[in-house]
Amino acid sequence: MKFNVTAPNFALQSLLTHKIDHKTKPLGALGLLEQLATQLGLIQQTTTPALNLPTVLVFAGDHGIANAQVSPYPQAVTAQMVLNFLHGGAAINVFAKQNNMQLRVIDSGVNYQFLPHADLIDAKIGMGTHNFLYEAAMSPVECGDAIIHGAQIVNDEIAKGCNVFGFGEMGIANTSSASCLMSVLCNLPIKVCVGRGTGLDDEGLAHKQKVLSEALAHHQLKSDHALQVLATFGGFEIAMMMGAMLQAAEKRCVLLIDGFITTAALLVAAKLQPNILHYCVFTHCSDETGHQKMLAYLNAKPLLNIGLRLGEGTGAALAYPLVLAAANFLNEMASFESAHVSQKTS
Amino acid sequence: MKFNVTAPNFALQSLLTHKIDHKTKPLGALGLLEQLATQLGLIQQTTTPALNLPTVLVFAGDHGIANAQVSPYPQAVTAQMVLNFLHGGAAINVFAKQNNMQLRVIDSGVNYQFLPHADLIDAKIGMGTHNFLYEAAMSPVECGDAIIHGAQIVNDEIAKGCNVFGFGEMGIANTSSASCLMSVLCNLPIKVCVGRGTGLDDEGLAHKQKVLSEALAHHQLKSDHALQVLATFGGFEIAMMMGAMLQAAEKRCVLLIDGFITTAALLVAAKLQPNILHYCVFTHCSDETGHQKMLAYLNAKPLLNIGLRLGEGTGAALAYPLVLAAANFLNEMASFESAHVSQKTS
Repeated sequence: MKFNVTAPNFALQSLLTHKIDHKTKPLGALGLLEQLATQLGLIQQTTTPALNLPTVLVFAGDHGIANAQVSPYPQAVTAQMVLNFLHGGAAINVFAKQNNMQLRVIDSGVNYQFLPHADLIDAKIGMGTHNFLYEAAMSPVECGDAIIHGAQIVNDEIAKGCNVFGFGEMGIANTSSASCLMSVLCNLPIKVCVGRGTGLDDEGLAHKQKVLSEALAHHQLKSDHALQVLATFGGFEIAMMMGAMLQAAEKRCVLLIDGFITTAALLVAAKLQPNILHYCVFTHCSDETGHQKMLAYLNAKPLLNIGLRLGEGTGAALAYPLVLAAANFLNEMASFESAHVSQKTS
Repeated sequence: MKFNVTAPNFALQSLLTHKIDHKTKPLGALGLLEQLATQLGLIQQTTTPALNLPTVLVFAGDHGIANAQVSPYPQAVTAQMVLNFLHGGAAINVFAKQNNMQLRVIDSGVNYQFLPHADLIDAKIGMGTHNFLYEAAMSPVECGDAIIHGAQIVNDEIAKGCNVFGFGEMGIANTSSASCLMSVLCNLPIKVCVGRGTGLDDEGLAHKQKVLSEALAHHQLKSDHALQVLATFGGFEIAMMMGAMLQAAEKRCVLLIDGFITTAALLVAAKLQPNILHYCVFTHCSDETGHQKMLAYLNAKPLLNIGLRLGEGTGAALAYPLVLAAANFLNEMASFESAHVSQKTS
């Protein structure tokens, strides 16, 4: 599948700035929301952006590297949490519902056969990836399949009217995948890329670092082969999410980027199509070690910094009202002129 | 008027922690939202807190110190912005509406005679304060009246079912009031308490610092006379907001604290009734110089840090969905047991 993500036309920027600066508020007084409003306008090429059918896509997959005891939770939790999503009991259910976002749960490759469910998209590539300590997590064909499925899922939602996507994931051990992707793609030592994930203790953290160092040494990959890096260290949910992101950006949607794993998927996407970054809103800085450096690498300013480290797209759902607020103030606030408010005298 | 703000009973804390820790997420993975959920539970003395009829109170007043050219906007803008609030065109209108919050605009002492309006509460103490460069901004009687009115306004909203208040303000030159309150009450040099307000240039900022230094030198007040400090440097909207805050805390409501001026009102309240801090959610750190130090003085961790410096209660309204999310996850998320999700193995 070929993607072609182009930059927005920046000719509209001065018109957007003019509109923002004439709203009844001091210049710049809405801070990051003003930059966000400009970004939304540029993405949609309008001074009256509208966010339609906001949808959180939660991609779930299992990881062979879980067998190397890199997570304090058993692999079965991936499937259990997918069922929790379908029953409405997880954090992402609560936050998506509160903020009027649709939720789509995608089986990208969970090690469990789910019964059909109205809210579950079956896009299973396999029953989990291989253990990348010994071999590539997936074959190039599997990786390509995952990417295509991700793009199709996004196309289906766009066809229904969605133009803003939150990206989330579930997969026991997928911080290990994300750490390796980060280490290779950002060219950073694995130590700064590895964190406690769902809550490793010091011993567990040291073990995880050792395992991932060995895996990286085994494969010896370079950052300029992003797809190979993805197939080697990624997960089915990460590859599928990456395909979804590229398609959403190609179709000029707004991308709400969540935490450590979601940003790792974006790292791959941005190596392939750097223009994708124009479409990304970085919703939060996770408490997971490494996310801050990942965001710095992407030159990203996150909206929230409240110590989240849950994944599932929870940061994207929690920050969505701020994104909506940016569109709303641009559309609904009066101007100095229309409200008969005096401007600065000095 | 006597206030008596008592601390919540902390006996419930362990039950709240237990409930939060058994939700289907790693321990602590919702970061600040977990502390917020605990706080909401303690304030309402329940493990199922409910936020009812969230209401933003915007207090407006004029300031004699505006005659000393401490703001780049003319005083008339206070009244013009009140009319903008009533017509629905200001930022706070947009954000309150988006997040399903009621908005009440209060004329605490604007230099303008408004026609009656369904959304305007007439609590006018006077046509603006005196210029505190030469004399106290208000008399002790006026200050007491303002406080009583604030408490009554809160009582009226509580009677209708509201249990969570956002506090906001409008008043040209009121960053000057707030800076002087901060300097005296936090015992900090005026220079670190003065910022650019609505957008002073370097020359304007130097002038504002000079004026406020002279005012502080003229009055020579100490932090242990908080009410006198308030009457001397405050505004009608600040005094009324302080009364509203004290009453809301006494009645065990949740207080959403906005930016620099709102936090200055809280500084006074906290000197009188330190227990008020148990009821406060600090919604954001403003870009106005001094707010960060004010928050540090109060040992407060703000939810948002997105460069806002608008006032009106906009930070409170923008952060409200996060506060609601804290209540919602506590009430709606499944537990490991109820969702049949395995817990940590190590």
